[in-house]
Amino acid sequence: MIPFKVPLRDMRFLMNEVFDYPSHYAALAPQNPADGEPATPELVDAILEAAATYCEEVLAPLNVSGDREGCQFHQGEVRTPTGFKEAYAQFVEGGWQTLAFPTAYGGQGLPMSLNLLKSEMLGTANWAFNMYPGLSVGCINTLLQYAPESIKQSCLPKLISGVWSGTMCLTEPQCGSDLSQVRTRAVPTGDGHYTLTGTKIFISSGEHDLTENIIHIVLARLPDAPAGTRGISLFLVPKFQFDAQGQLGARNSVHCASIEHKMGIHANATAVLNFDAAHAILIGEPNKGLEAMFTFMNTARIGTAIQGICHAERSYQGALAYARERRSMRSLSGTKEPDQVADALLWHPDVRRMLLTQKAIVEGGRAMVYAAVQISDRVFGAAWRGDHAAYRAGDAELGFYTPILKGFLTELGVEAASLGIQVYGGHGYIQEHGMEQILRDARIATLYEGTTGIQALDLLGRKVILSTRGQCVRDFTSRMRRLATPHLLRTDTLGRLARAAWWRAWQWDRLTWRLLWRARKDRDSIGAASVDFLMYSGYVMMAHCWLQQALVAEKALTQGQDADFYRAKLETAEFYFSRLLPRADAHLLAARASTQTLMQMSEARFGAPS
Amino acid sequence: MIPFKVPLRDMRFLMNEVFDYPSHYAALAPQNPADGEPATPELVDAILEAAATYCEEVLAPLNVSGDREGCQFHQGEVRTPTGFKEAYAQFVEGGWQTLAFPTAYGGQGLPMSLNLLKSEMLGTANWAFNMYPGLSVGCINTLLQYAPESIKQSCLPKLISGVWSGTMCLTEPQCGSDLSQVRTRAVPTGDGHYTLTGTKIFISSGEHDLTENIIHIVLARLPDAPAGTRGISLFLVPKFQFDAQGQLGARNSVHCASIEHKMGIHANATAVLNFDAAHAILIGEPNKGLEAMFTFMNTARIGTAIQGICHAERSYQGALAYARERRSMRSLSGTKEPDQVADALLWHPDVRRMLLTQKAIVEGGRAMVYAAVQISDRVFGAAWRGDHAAYRAGDAELGFYTPILKGFLTELGVEAASLGIQVYGGHGYIQEHGMEQILRDARIATLYEGTTGIQALDLLGRKVILSTRGQCVRDFTSRMRRLATPHLLRTDTLGRLARAAWWRAWQWDRLTWRLLWRARKDRDSIGAASVDFLMYSGYVMMAHCWLQQALVAEKALTQGQDADFYRAKLETAEFYFSRLLPRADAHLLAARASTQTLMQMSEARFGAPS
Repeated sequence: MIPFKVPLRDMRFLMNEVFDYPSHYAALAPQNPADGEPATPELVDAILEAAATYCEEVLAPLNVSGDREGCQFHQGEVRTPTGFKEAYAQFVEGGWQTLAFPTAYGGQGLPMSLNLLKSEMLGTANWAFNMYPGLSVGCINTLLQYAPESIKQSCLPKLISGVWSGTMCLTEPQCGSDLSQVRTRAVPTGDGHYTLTGTKIFISSGEHDLTENIIHIVLARLPDAPAGTRGISLFLVPKFQFDAQGQLGARNSVHCASIEHKMGIHANATAVLNFDAAHAILIGEPNKGLEAMFTFMNTARIGTAIQGICHAERSYQGALAYARERRSMRSLSGTKEPDQVADALLWHPDVRRMLLTQKAIVEGGRAMVYAAVQISDRVFGAAWRGDHAAYRAGDAELGFYTPILKGFLTELGVEAASLGIQVYGGHGYIQEHGMEQILRDARIATLYEGTTGIQALDLLGRKVILSTRGQCVRDFTSRMRRLATPHLLRTDTLGRLARAAWWRAWQWDRLTWRLLWRARKDRDSIGAASVDFLMYSGYVMMAHCWLQQALVAEKALTQGQDADFYRAKLETAEFYFSRLLPRADAHLLAARASTQTLMQMSEARFGAPS
Repeated sequence: MIPFKVPLRDMRFLMNEVFDYPSHYAALAPQNPADGEPATPELVDAILEAAATYCEEVLAPLNVSGDREGCQFHQGEVRTPTGFKEAYAQFVEGGWQTLAFPTAYGGQGLPMSLNLLKSEMLGTANWAFNMYPGLSVGCINTLLQYAPESIKQSCLPKLISGVWSGTMCLTEPQCGSDLSQVRTRAVPTGDGHYTLTGTKIFISSGEHDLTENIIHIVLARLPDAPAGTRGISLFLVPKFQFDAQGQLGARNSVHCASIEHKMGIHANATAVLNFDAAHAILIGEPNKGLEAMFTFMNTARIGTAIQGICHAERSYQGALAYARERRSMRSLSGTKEPDQVADALLWHPDVRRMLLTQKAIVEGGRAMVYAAVQISDRVFGAAWRGDHAAYRAGDAELGFYTPILKGFLTELGVEAASLGIQVYGGHGYIQEHGMEQILRDARIATLYEGTTGIQALDLLGRKVILSTRGQCVRDFTSRMRRLATPHLLRTDTLGRLARAAWWRAWQWDRLTWRLLWRARKDRDSIGAASVDFLMYSGYVMMAHCWLQQALVAEKALTQGQDADFYRAKLETAEFYFSRLLPRADAHLLAARASTQTLMQMSEARFGAPS
C-alpha cells in the first residue's frame, strides 16, 4: 500500500511565505459576514494539523479498501464500503463541514479558502470519500443564497453539521453539457409546492447510507417555461420531507434506480435518480435556475481542479517511496550503491524526469489554487454581505482562473497519475500497490463539472472574447511582467526563468489578440483553438507560480534555515521551465493552426460507419 | 457496446498503394526458407478477409464480456472467460497460428509480416485474447532457432498448430528490467536434463484452460554461472512432459500460485509461476540465454507496438460512432441540424480535434508498423536460412525502428484511448459503452516488453550512440529528405508538409549530433534525454509516414476513384503536421535541457519519506 502524509510543509510555504495568507485573512476578518472567529495563523494551523491527522489516520487507510469493495446497490439502497460510515461520523463530529459556513446556521464562519484547502487534504487521502461532503457544499451555498429563510432555518443546520448531505442534479440521459435539453418537469400543486418528475443520471453521492437525509438540488422546467436554458428552474427535493425544525417526515418519491459501474471512484455512488411526482420546493426565481446554479460554479470548479493535485500528490508520494527502495541496474554514470545488488531507481535520470514532472505539477498546481482561492474568499464575503458589485467583480476575476485551473490541472493530474504507474513498471499496473487506482480515480476529473472542452469554451469564448475582449489575460500578464521585470538582467538561473516568464506573458497577449481577431469572422475558430489555448494558458500561469515560489525560496535560502526545502523549490522551478514549459510551444502552434485543419473534413471522410 | 469493423480499406491502402507489399512479397518468395506458397496478392487478400470475419464475428463480441468476467483462479487452475475456449478452438481450426512458420513443422511458410498484420486485427478485436496465441510466437521463434532437432520435432507442430501454447518467463519479484538479478536456478540431473527452481511473476498467458499443454521458456542460472547477465541460460519447462511424438506425460512441477488483479486485460491471465525442481531442457548454449532471448526481440516488441494502434483504432471507432449520433448544443458557426434538438458532436471543432488526433495516430502509426515489418520479413528469412550476416544487417535496421515504435506508439495508444473517453464525456467513464476498458487495457502497453524508459535507453544509448554513432538516424533522415525534396518548392499544402518534413529531418540529425557529443563526457545525459529523444523521433518518423501517405493519396485522387478516402488521407496528414507535429518542439527542447535539471536534486530534497 502506498504511504501517505499530508504535505503540511508545502501548504504552509504557500500560505505563509508565498501568498501571505495571514494578511489576507486579517484583511478579510473585519468584514467577514459569516461572522466567525478571525482566521488567525494559530487557528489556521491548528485546523490544518487536526485535518491532517484525520486524513492520515482515518481516511487514507480506507482508500484502497473502498475501491475494492465499492458501493453496493440493493433495492434502491446504497451501502458504502466498510468503514465509511464510521469515518463519516468522525467527519461530522470533528465539525469538518462547518468551517466556512455562517455561524447563524451552525457554521464556524471561517473563510471559504480554508474549506478548499481542507478539501485538498481529504481528497488526497480518499477522493471518493471526499465527494460525499464535497457535493453538499454546492447545495449549501445555493440554499444560503437563494432559499427562503424558513428553508434555511430548517435545512442548513443539518447540512452544515453534515448530519444531512446534498447533491446537485443536472445531467439527464439525453444531456450533460447541453442543459437546454433538460426535460425534467415540475408542476405547481397550488399550495406553494411542486411535484417534480423526471430522471437524473450521474448524480454523485446521489444515494448512500452516511446521512439520515439527502437534499437534492434539481434543475427542472415549469409547465409554462420557455424552451432552452432560459426555462430552467431550481428545486429542492429532499429524500425525506422535513418540518420547520428539520424533523424528518415522509419518504419522498425520489428513488435510486441503480448506480453506475465506473472506471474508478468506486467508493462514491453515482446514482440514477427517478423523480416520480416528488415533493419539491422552488429555490430562487422561476426560470432563473441556471443562473442560480452557476452562482458559485467558479468555486465549485476549483474544488474539482483540486482533484488533479490530490491524485498527483498521492501518486508522487507512492512513486517516490518506490524509487527510493526498488533497485534496478546501475547508474549510467557509475555504480552509486556498491553494497546493494543494484542502484535505486532514483539514481536513474529518466525516473527523476518522471518524479520531477509529478512534483512540478503538484507544487505548481497547488500554488495556482492557493492564488485563486483567495479570490473565492472575497467572492463569498461579498455574496453573504449582499454586495453585488463586489461579488460580480470578484467572480469575474475568479472566472478567469476557474476554467484554466479546472481544465489544465485535471489533465495534468491524469498525466501525473499515469507517470506514477510508469515509475513502478509492471508493478504499477496491478492492484497491489494502489497506483493504478489513482489513475482510474483521476480520469473522471476532466469529465465532470464541465469537460476540458467545456472549460476551454468558457475560457476563450466567454471569459476572454465575449466578456473582456482579452482584458482578463492582459491583467494577468501585467502581473507576470511586474514579477519578472526586476530580475530580467540577472545572469543566473532565476534571471533565465524571469526572462522566460516575461516572454511567455508577451506571447500570451499576442496569441489572445490573434484569436480575438480571428473570432470576428470565424466563430468555429474559437472551438478550434480553445483547448490548446487553455492548455497554453495553464502552462504559462504555472510558470508564473513557479517563478513566484522560486523568488521566495531564494530569499529564504539566505536565512539559512531549511535549506533543502528551499533548494528543492528552486530546482523544481528550473526543471519546470526547462522541461515542461516548452510544451506551451506545441499548444501555441496548435492554437494558431487554421480552423480548416479541423473543419474541412466532411462527415463521410471520417470513415464508414462500422 | 462500441461497434467494430476491421479497417481493411486502410490496411490495403498501406499494403498495395504505399508500401508495395506485392513486390516485397514477390522479392521474398524465391528465397523464402519457410518454404510455403508464395504470398500472392490474392492469397494475402483472402487471408485478410477471413481473419477480419473471425475478428468481427467471434473475437470482438467477447471483448467486453471477457473484461467483466475476467480470468478465475482456483487451486492452481485458471478458467478463461466464457466463450474464450470456443473462440480459441476456432483459432486453431482456422490455422491462424500457422501462417508464418516453416512448413516443416506444420506452418504455412508465409512471411512474418502477415502474422503481425493479422495480430493487429485480432488485437483490435480483443487484445486480451490475442495475447494467448501472441505469447506463443516468441516461444516458437526461440525454439526454431535454438532448440535441438528432437525438441523441434516433438514440440513445434503442437505449438504451431496452436494445440499447445507457450510463454516467456523473465521477470522475478525482485527484478524486471534488470535481468542481471535473476535468481531462478537450474541444476543438471546427469541425464542431460535439468531441474529448475524459482519464482517467475507477470507471466502473461502463464496458465489457462485453452490448450492441453503450455511450454514455458525460462531464464535461469546454472550452478557455475557467472554473476550478472552473462550467467543466464534458457530452459524449456513444459507444464506436462512430452515424448518424442509430442504425447503428453507426467505433470511437471511448475504451478500457478496466483494470478494478478490488474487494471485491465482482465481476460488474460498474468500468472505467478512457482518452479519446484521442475523438469527442464536447456535451449541453446549455457550462459548465452539472454542473447537467445533477444534474438527476435525486435519483432516481438513490434508486436507490442501494434497494441497502441489496436486500442487507438477501437477507441476511434467507438468515439466516431458516438460523435455522429449524440447531439449536444449548436455549432458555434450556426445551427447545422435544424430538425434535431441539437447538433451532433461531430460539428464541434474540439470534438473533431480529438477524433482527428485519434485518426492521425492510428493511420500514421499503422504506416510506421507496415514499413517496419517488411524488414522483419527479411530478418526471419535470413535467420531460417542461417545467413548470419543478412540477419545481423536486417536486425540492426529493424532495431532502429523497434524502440521508437514500441515506445512512441504505445504512449500514443494510451492518449488515443483516453481521448475516446473524453468524446463520450461522463458516458466514457462508465463501463456501459466499453470506452474505459480500452484505456485500462491500453495502459499496460508502455510497461511490458520493456517500459518506455527502457525503449528509450535502447534507442539512444545502444542503437544511436553505441552501435552506430548516429548513422541509423542519418540513414532514416536521408530517406526523409529524398521523399520531401522533389516537393519543396510547391506552393500548396503538400509543399508545406514536405518542407516541414525536410526541416525536421535536418533538426533530428542535429539533435542526434548534440546528444552524441554530450554523451562523451556525461553518461547521465543519455538517460536524461532518452525519452524525449524517443518521442521526438516518433513524431518525426510519423511525419515522414504521413507525407508518404499524402503523396500517394494525391496521385490516387487524380484517378478519380474513392475520392473521399484519399481526401481524408490528405486532410489527416495536414491535421497531423499542423496540430500534432508541433509537439516535437517540446520534446526537442526537453531533450536538449541540461542533465543537471534532473540530477542536481539530492535524494533528500525530493521530499521527506512519508
